[in-house]
Amino acid sequence: MIVILGPDVGEESPEYRRILEHLAAKPNIQTRVHREVGSIRTVTEIYLIGDTHTLDKNEIEALPGVERVVRISEEYRVVGRHKNDDRPAGFGYNGIRFGQDNLNLFPGLCAVDSRENADAMFKALKSQGQRCARMGAYKPRTSPYAFQGHGKSCLPWVFELAGKHGLQVISMEITHDSHLEEIVAALEKAGRPTGVMLQIGTRNTQNFELLKCVGRQHEFPVLLKRGFGITLEESLNAAEYVASEGNHRIVFGLRGMKSNFGDPHRNLVDFAHVPVVQRMTRMPVCIDPSHAVGSRERGPDGILDLCHAAAQGVIAGANMVLVDFHPAPEKALVDGPQALLLSELPAFLKDMEITRKAYEQRRELARASRP
Amino acid sequence: MIVILGPDVGEESPEYRRILEHLAAKPNIQTRVHREVGSIRTVTEIYLIGDTHTLDKNEIEALPGVERVVRISEEYRVVGRHKNDDRPAGFGYNGIRFGQDNLNLFPGLCAVDSRENADAMFKALKSQGQRCARMGAYKPRTSPYAFQGHGKSCLPWVFELAGKHGLQVISMEITHDSHLEEIVAALEKAGRPTGVMLQIGTRNTQNFELLKCVGRQHEFPVLLKRGFGITLEESLNAAEYVASEGNHRIVFGLRGMKSNFGDPHRNLVDFAHVPVVQRMTRMPVCIDPSHAVGSRERGPDGILDLCHAAAQGVIAGANMVLVDFHPAPEKALVDGPQALLLSELPAFLKDMEITRKAYEQRRELARASRP
Amino acid sequence: MIVILGPDVGEESPEYRRILEHLAAKPNIQTRVHREVGSIRTVTEIYLIGDTHTLDKNEIEALPGVERVVRISEEYRVVGRHKNDDRPAGFGYNGIRFGQDNLNLFPGLCAVDSRENADAMFKALKSQGQRCARMGAYKPRTSPYAFQGHGKSCLPWVFELAGKHGLQVISMEITHDSHLEEIVAALEKAGRPTGVMLQIGTRNTQNFELLKCVGRQHEFPVLLKRGFGITLEESLNAAEYVASEGNHRIVFGLRGMKSNFGDPHRNLVDFAHVPVVQRMTRMPVCIDPSHAVGSRERGPDGILDLCHAAAQGVIAGANMVLVDFHPAPEKALVDGPQALLLSELPAFLKDMEITRKAYEQRRELARASRP
Amino acid sequence: MIVILGPDVGEESPEYRRILEHLAAKPNIQTRVHREVGSIRTVTEIYLIGDTHTLDKNEIEALPGVERVVRISEEYRVVGRHKNDDRPAGFGYNGIRFGQDNLNLFPGLCAVDSRENADAMFKALKSQGQRCARMGAYKPRTSPYAFQGHGKSCLPWVFELAGKHGLQVISMEITHDSHLEEIVAALEKAGRPTGVMLQIGTRNTQNFELLKCVGRQHEFPVLLKRGFGITLEESLNAAEYVASEGNHRIVFGLRGMKSNFGDPHRNLVDFAHVPVVQRMTRMPVCIDPSHAVGSRERGPDGILDLCHAAAQGVIAGANMVLVDFHPAPEKALVDGPQALLLSELPAFLKDMEITRKAYEQRRELARASRP
Repeated sequence: MIVILGPDVGEESPEYRRILEHLAAKPNIQTRVHREVGSIRTVTEIYLIGDTHTLDKNEIEALPGVERVVRISEEYRVVGRHKNDDRPAGFGYNGIRFGQDNLNLFPGLCAVDSRENADAMFKALKSQGQRCARMGAYKPRTSPYAFQGHGKSCLPWVFELAGKHGLQVISMEITHDSHLEEIVAALEKAGRPTGVMLQIGTRNTQNFELLKCVGRQHEFPVLLKRGFGITLEESLNAAEYVASEGNHRIVFGLRGMKSNFGDPHRNLVDFAHVPVVQRMTRMPVCIDPSHAVGSRERGPDGILDLCHAAAQGVIAGANMVLVDFHPAPEKALVDGPQALLLSELPAFLKDMEITRKAYEQRRELARASRP
Repeated sequence: MIVILGPDVGEESPEYRRILEHLAAKPNIQTRVHREVGSIRTVTEIYLIGDTHTLDKNEIEALPGVERVVRISEEYRVVGRHKNDDRPAGFGYNGIRFGQDNLNLFPGLCAVDSRENADAMFKALKSQGQRCARMGAYKPRTSPYAFQGHGKSCLPWVFELAGKHGLQVISMEITHDSHLEEIVAALEKAGRPTGVMLQIGTRNTQNFELLKCVGRQHEFPVLLKRGFGITLEESLNAAEYVASEGNHRIVFGLRGMKSNFGDPHRNLVDFAHVPVVQRMTRMPVCIDPSHAVGSRERGPDGILDLCHAAAQGVIAGANMVLVDFHPAPEKALVDGPQALLLSELPAFLKDMEITRKAYEQRRELARASRP
Repeated sequence: MIVILGPDVGEESPEYRRILEHLAAKPNIQTRVHREVGSIRTVTEIYLIGDTHTLDKNEIEALPGVERVVRISEEYRVVGRHKNDDRPAGFGYNGIRFGQDNLNLFPGLCAVDSRENADAMFKALKSQGQRCARMGAYKPRTSPYAFQGHGKSCLPWVFELAGKHGLQVISMEITHDSHLEEIVAALEKAGRPTGVMLQIGTRNTQNFELLKCVGRQHEFPVLLKRGFGITLEESLNAAEYVASEGNHRIVFGLRGMKSNFGDPHRNLVDFAHVPVVQRMTRMPVCIDPSHAVGSRERGPDGILDLCHAAAQGVIAGANMVLVDFHPAPEKALVDGPQALLLSELPAFLKDMEITRKAYEQRRELARASRP
Repeated sequence: MIVILGPDVGEESPEYRRILEHLAAKPNIQTRVHREVGSIRTVTEIYLIGDTHTLDKNEIEALPGVERVVRISEEYRVVGRHKNDDRPAGFGYNGIRFGQDNLNLFPGLCAVDSRENADAMFKALKSQGQRCARMGAYKPRTSPYAFQGHGKSCLPWVFELAGKHGLQVISMEITHDSHLEEIVAALEKAGRPTGVMLQIGTRNTQNFELLKCVGRQHEFPVLLKRGFGITLEESLNAAEYVASEGNHRIVFGLRGMKSNFGDPHRNLVDFAHVPVVQRMTRMPVCIDPSHAVGSRERGPDGILDLCHAAAQGVIAGANMVLVDFHPAPEKALVDGPQALLLSELPAFLKDMEITRKAYEQRRELARASRP
């Protein structure tokens, strides 16, 4: 349950104090205060957790200073798209806009393996006018005996090289609070040559402590990937964990689901949910065709399945694409078999351009056809 | 195991007789002879079923008259796309070509309810230059107490109206051998004013007796829908059941899978498998976005989720689209909530055209980019 | 919606006629009359199907001759266990009682392969005092090139041998209407030496035409297996298809579900649903540990996984167990790897006895502990 | 790949140094040394991770001091049960033995809510002679707005009360490294009145950083719950993460899986995997019927579904049972609907006793029947 206070009820006011006292007297109820400072008005909200079904909504709404009370069955309070909700979707970061109505591509290395490869990757991106890249330093692997990424040690040269080639945002997975500290330290030391989007992978979608950690900081946006074996609701609640701590700059990522149908791909591509997430929330939606498909097999039309999957996301309005490239996939330490070659970058970008343009035509058509 | 005979080894030849005798002496082995009469050459094949792992491939290959022996691990013998396989994909029927490289749309009624609605549907299709339609007479329903379709009784006027409006092929589900007989009788009586594609629904994908029944007739092509809760392999084996009885004119249909992720759609859209089925087999691939999505919800861009799903199939090269329309969805007896309105037909067709064109550009690009 | 008539409202009565006329005037509504002749009273029910949500329950209940009206949201009308429902669960057939409170074992051949093996199987069962057996003649197989069972040709000697060894009920899968006719003919010719339980396999759980066919006959009870990739509700509706045609002697079979968790067994054992089906319906519940587990692997305690699965069903109150045995599993044409040896029969029966006894103790305890 | 050194090859020996140098020269290979100090012999193993498929097993095995080299395809090296593997399964902790051949019950509070309830719970357990309890302080909840447990603040009195009532081991979930520190501190402060088993919940099964954290400490055993939406292999690999850091005292917990079959229970009960995990690994296997079933519904025999599920685990040899009790379930802050009443404790324990005894009879029978 959320108690939303009137605009004039500051934390010093007597109403505020009385409301808190009133709530403190309720059994089995805890309170948490959330203050959203906006350019137009500041909203103070008190979240009530615990045994809230015993509370009387009207009684609380009648307290002086309370504007209204919302029962939490209205989920995804922060990230959700609510009735008469005119809050804007999306955000800007380091010169790039992330919205529900545009598209950003993040080609790059699934796992950074060597300085040479990172340099080659960035160079190829720059030559194609790209401004963003995926770049994995911390790799959670199913087996403890598999390569786990270079971690902290590669950050200095990854950031330096990104700055050298003018990359503005790098998407980088973290799996522990300490990784965030390491990234902050390395970025600072390098003079902040680039921006970082913190990526939470599918194995940590319900690692609530990590979500709260990236939610408490306000510097970096977060790319939260959907859990591959949980419901959409559970994954959206995970996004709400980040948002409820204060950081609202969240991109929601689709990356394929576990499948029980002897799937010919690594995962079951779930990109039909792009418009669903855009409808339920105000988050831009990312797709990861490389991990969804997991191979380089191609149809008889000569197009790779993973490029078909990317096109399927984009034709339905996806806002961001993570895609694995590698200068020498056969030598990649992680997920080499699914990586595209640097020589395939121009055609990939062209494919995305054709498809995005078709999406925009479809959107135009839909607007024109509705009364 | 399949024993493929040399081109000159007719059923009268002594080699043929000796081969059969040799095989008959094997314990726990049954034989079935399959003769594929082609324009260039006729192939005679002997299928061995039962305890074939005890057989010696070399021993049989050494028999005079045997060209080669194929272990059945090479599945989908008839429908499959094999190494150095230059057999053409697709077929023609009643003036329409069904191939892996073109696209046919089948808008129509999920369930025929009244003569007026069928007439209105056909009229709308004709006015848009369409030549095909879905039109359900026999409806398998989860509950025995739900409307089961008008069945046989509506066939006369459905076929008559289809002929009147110049529809060339109607896709119609059957669930029992007797329905095939009823369709043949009604078509004959009406003077064959239209063609019929026999549709096998997802609940009957492994109804092998029905598959054999439609496989034994050679008049009608078959649209076999993938089972919504079985593996892709199992569904392709179902197609092989049809083909192994002699009817090779099969379209394979994707219609969404059962999902365990609290799916926001009726089923989990599986259209990323379009290129997979095209690669594994020579069958054209149909998508059914209406049953996959199952609702009329739309994204914030104003496009219906089901139109997004249709576009996702088409952008990846789908060859056929079944899509539900209804003159008055709120009165439809079956699946009304997911039907498009007749007034939405022109925009839907335009959407498909935009997307198909983008697919063709993507295909062109792929061809140009490969060495 | 179901309109239940008063006990005195025969089909000749004026009330009956007026009720039917009243209902016939409703748009988009079809009626079907069902008459259940009981020893105490006869119930006449009119099922309304189609657009029933537009109907006014009170209006119909007010008609003379109508006892009450039940909205069909109360599903599983015939097979279900309803509030204040004192209709008995279970039935007798050929001297065997099938109830929710007893246990019958059906060890036997998954697929009849030879007269010798059938004879050996029956002999072993007889020597252990068993009265029932599974015995498969028609085998639906995933691939059209796999052994499909001896079908009709083995029926004469299977029935003869069953009679010779005093087996009272044989469970036998059928996959087409014609199989039922073949069984009736063969039984008749052999002088009905044994009884048959018609088994509907998991691939045909939603083959509604077959369900209606076994529902229309009243001679044989039906063992309906749950669909391995559909919801429990869908499978219970399938049972209702059988029952709604008039045959209420149905056993519901659990046999494991498709799994997406890289299951170490062939299927995911679903025997925790034994009490659920007993609670939701009045059908006895069968388990099939052989097909659920699909192998002969054993735990470090020396017990086969499939015997553990069988015990898990029985400890929760299962009423019937289908289990594969074979005189020489390594030569079996179907599912040999999961078959138990004839020499393992006594220990298997003993295991079931220990476990059933423990179940009965648990049941006693539950009764004693409740106020 | 694992390089196992000879018993005499200490870390000071020249062979050891030469082996490490040899391996350091390999490209893309990282090494980690693991030393298992046993009572009979000490084993030194060098794990090679990265690009190990390029290595030549024979070349490394030929190095002086190397006993043998194991390719990692032999997964679950530490927790696994390997060929000719006579390492004992199980371990002792605080006076309780956790093995694959015995059974420990952990009834208790899913979430500690008040001192009174914890006291009542412990008292009830003591009166029944129980020595272990579940007791949740940190609760990961799907929604950020739900009660998250009292956390650190309740530890002092939970430990104090456990000690007062003589509970020897408490199972307690943690979701962050800091929780471990808090537990250590609180235990220390209270004078270690009880033992703690660290529980990793299903949402953190692949939170590898947390796994490594509990793997690095040697004081507390770990109860690792299987991930509810990942494969068994992935969950066993998670156990290996704990073990590979040095802590081998791991119990593996089954708690039901996500289901796509419209499951009537909260999860699909997966207790048929009890013998599978016992066969694949040396870990004792725990079941959690409360979270698997998630409700208090009961069969017509009067037994709760969750008690049936518990019996299903125990009849197949489960070694530990977590089960939710609560003095007043209707007031519980978490998962009240599935909790048993304190008054139901004696009958529950008796049920487990009946079933465990039946399991032991079954095991006896299996031993007697095998040649």
